[in-house]
Amino acid sequence: MADHRAPVDGARVLDDLNTLRSIGAYKGGVHKPTFSDAHIRSLHWLATKLPEAGLAADIDGIGNVLGTSTKSGPKLLAGSHLESQNFAGWLDGPLGVVYALEAARVINPDADIKGAVEVASWCDEEGHFGSFLGSRSYVGAVTDEDIDAARDRSSGRTLREALREAGLAGRARVTAERGRHIGYLEAHIEQGQTLESGGLAIGIVTSIVGIWQYRISFVGEQNHAGTTRMDLRKDAGLALARFCVAIDDRFPGYSGPRTVWTTGRITLDPGAPSIIPGRAEMLFQIRDAEPAVIERLEDLLRSMAKDVTAQGGCAVEIERLRTGAPALMDSRFQQTIEDASGRFAGGRSVRMPSGAGHDAQVLATIMPAGMLFVPSIGGISHHWTENTDDADIVTGAQVFVETCRLLLAE
Amino acid sequence: MADHRAPVDGARVLDDLNTLRSIGAYKGGVHKPTFSDAHIRSLHWLATKLPEAGLAADIDGIGNVLGTSTKSGPKLLAGSHLESQNFAGWLDGPLGVVYALEAARVINPDADIKGAVEVASWCDEEGHFGSFLGSRSYVGAVTDEDIDAARDRSSGRTLREALREAGLAGRARVTAERGRHIGYLEAHIEQGQTLESGGLAIGIVTSIVGIWQYRISFVGEQNHAGTTRMDLRKDAGLALARFCVAIDDRFPGYSGPRTVWTTGRITLDPGAPSIIPGRAEMLFQIRDAEPAVIERLEDLLRSMAKDVTAQGGCAVEIERLRTGAPALMDSRFQQTIEDASGRFAGGRSVRMPSGAGHDAQVLATIMPAGMLFVPSIGGISHHWTENTDDADIVTGAQVFVETCRLLLAE
Repeated sequence: MADHRAPVDGARVLDDLNTLRSIGAYKGGVHKPTFSDAHIRSLHWLATKLPEAGLAADIDGIGNVLGTSTKSGPKLLAGSHLESQNFAGWLDGPLGVVYALEAARVINPDADIKGAVEVASWCDEEGHFGSFLGSRSYVGAVTDEDIDAARDRSSGRTLREALREAGLAGRARVTAERGRHIGYLEAHIEQGQTLESGGLAIGIVTSIVGIWQYRISFVGEQNHAGTTRMDLRKDAGLALARFCVAIDDRFPGYSGPRTVWTTGRITLDPGAPSIIPGRAEMLFQIRDAEPAVIERLEDLLRSMAKDVTAQGGCAVEIERLRTGAPALMDSRFQQTIEDASGRFAGGRSVRMPSGAGHDAQVLATIMPAGMLFVPSIGGISHHWTENTDDADIVTGAQVFVETCRLLLAE
Repeated sequence: MADHRAPVDGARVLDDLNTLRSIGAYKGGVHKPTFSDAHIRSLHWLATKLPEAGLAADIDGIGNVLGTSTKSGPKLLAGSHLESQNFAGWLDGPLGVVYALEAARVINPDADIKGAVEVASWCDEEGHFGSFLGSRSYVGAVTDEDIDAARDRSSGRTLREALREAGLAGRARVTAERGRHIGYLEAHIEQGQTLESGGLAIGIVTSIVGIWQYRISFVGEQNHAGTTRMDLRKDAGLALARFCVAIDDRFPGYSGPRTVWTTGRITLDPGAPSIIPGRAEMLFQIRDAEPAVIERLEDLLRSMAKDVTAQGGCAVEIERLRTGAPALMDSRFQQTIEDASGRFAGGRSVRMPSGAGHDAQVLATIMPAGMLFVPSIGGISHHWTENTDDADIVTGAQVFVETCRLLLAE
């Protein structure tokens, strides 16, 4: 086979990314929650770009943008997402969508390459309304009842309202046509410091860790903050604080080398300065690639809760909200990314698990899937200062497009 | 002087309190935030009742309801407030207003008693928009600029909007006519267990403790909860939890016997389950009757914050939002409440400080002031289960009216 050395247009990739950054711009990043005006405009922007790559564009009834090809031969699905966390970075999501678009622009018109790259922007990967709603809808794991029940976690707006306001009410949801694709490829910023600190250009994802999420609730006694003596209090907020500290003190003795755990939200009820909180709640997350580690930590968590409750102050309850089995990336995809990195990134690649969840883990349930990472400056993510060097973005695009070409050629 | 033994109508007092309870009812209590519909209806209810006591009713430009008398002789001001904390109890506020109304109904028409009781319902004692806005307006401590700036802490609605919606925009605010009143008397539920556990009927308030309030802010590094290794994190939420626990461990070594401290609200920023909080904030309150104790505790707090910041993880800042000098209740008022308790409560009274703030502390800045407490069942307050025995409510009313009579007669 001839060496095509896919002619990636680095300036075009950076232009597209900066265009998406300008829609819903916030400081150096973006504020583009799911079905915000900025998000909807970004979906339409993508739909107008897809024909440049020989793709027919469709925005479906859950907000997925899908670009499909009539070219003969094998088809590779590629993409990521366009919405952002609140006040977050410009690359988390758009990078993978623009790489997919670029791959389609380079490969699809080329008669010497058999097959085509099809492009997807999955809606709500960031979980404003749910958990991987768009990609899960595509693989057939979202029911109409799930959609009826979903609400924006911040504003409370229902998903049905949001879809109506976005002009998507009543549209069909597109689901995967089994056997259509040889697999799914996604690129993303690393959101960590492994690549940067190792002087590397490409992370080859081996697996996506599972996320286990819990609601931990504390029940004490709501009372007046001025008239209730310290020794008579059952302060649910203080019990929560002690529990957070206890987790941080005890988890390291039971966790694996890459386990992470986070308390992302705390709510005291009623939350007034002159009232002792009678109830308190925390959202708590554990991630690891090893279910056995999680099991050990969940056991510890539950026994800690039992101990606190037994002491008779505040009662602690633990509810598991999300159970995340780790997803393995296809070994052939891993090898192909490594080969492409050898040609376009001087072999500066490393195999590594992903600590973050991605749509690839959902697509992996119905087809072979692969992921590659590009470096994040300072490892910063989910914050508007998130960034990647332009040169690294272009190198990543070259490796991505080459990986697509090699996968289609196999 | 003849022994009048003020003919209090206990059933009427309970009826009035239950009528106010039915306006904005929530379970056994009420949800009546400042300038909610239920609150406004309660103000109008009072305004229609005041003429029964020979008082001219006015609702002024800050939502204070004032009943004024043209009867000759000394005048005693009495009252409390009608709004509630969110989803809170039925007596916190209304008890003192209805007692004042009852005193006015008993005393004002009685030609044998010189002088009159004037009734006040102070707006926003519960601090939805500010801090003692109504009584502070009455003593001249609130400027128009303060009103321009005030907003509902929960909904964000401005005070100007709320006043407009309540039909009070453009009305003058009534301020105290110096020398008009011999003093101010207020009754309230205890909101603690001192009276109940001692089998007592009346608490004679000696002083109202000062409230010092702080915003304690933690700055770490916002980052991705899946991709940021535990040893690289600067988790502002965890730093806050550790600070709460450290306060609770260290304060007892520096506090007085009646000092209380409370973390009533915690906010993690951005508050999403998959993001390590980059910022966190807590509202923290200390109360004591001794400014020297508070000073010691504030020094400790600041040195703890300095230590945490010096450790290089998260930076901690402490901002004092509220400085509350304790207010002394008038000794003649205290003695008169004790005398009245001797006659109507079998002497089952005790002198005690108030751990809660009350409008009496504001009125005390311009006239002699006194306060009496009735028992709270289980000491519960700022919760819809707050309650007081009907018999204790009636006894309290008798002592209150007798105290008014005695003060006017002196």
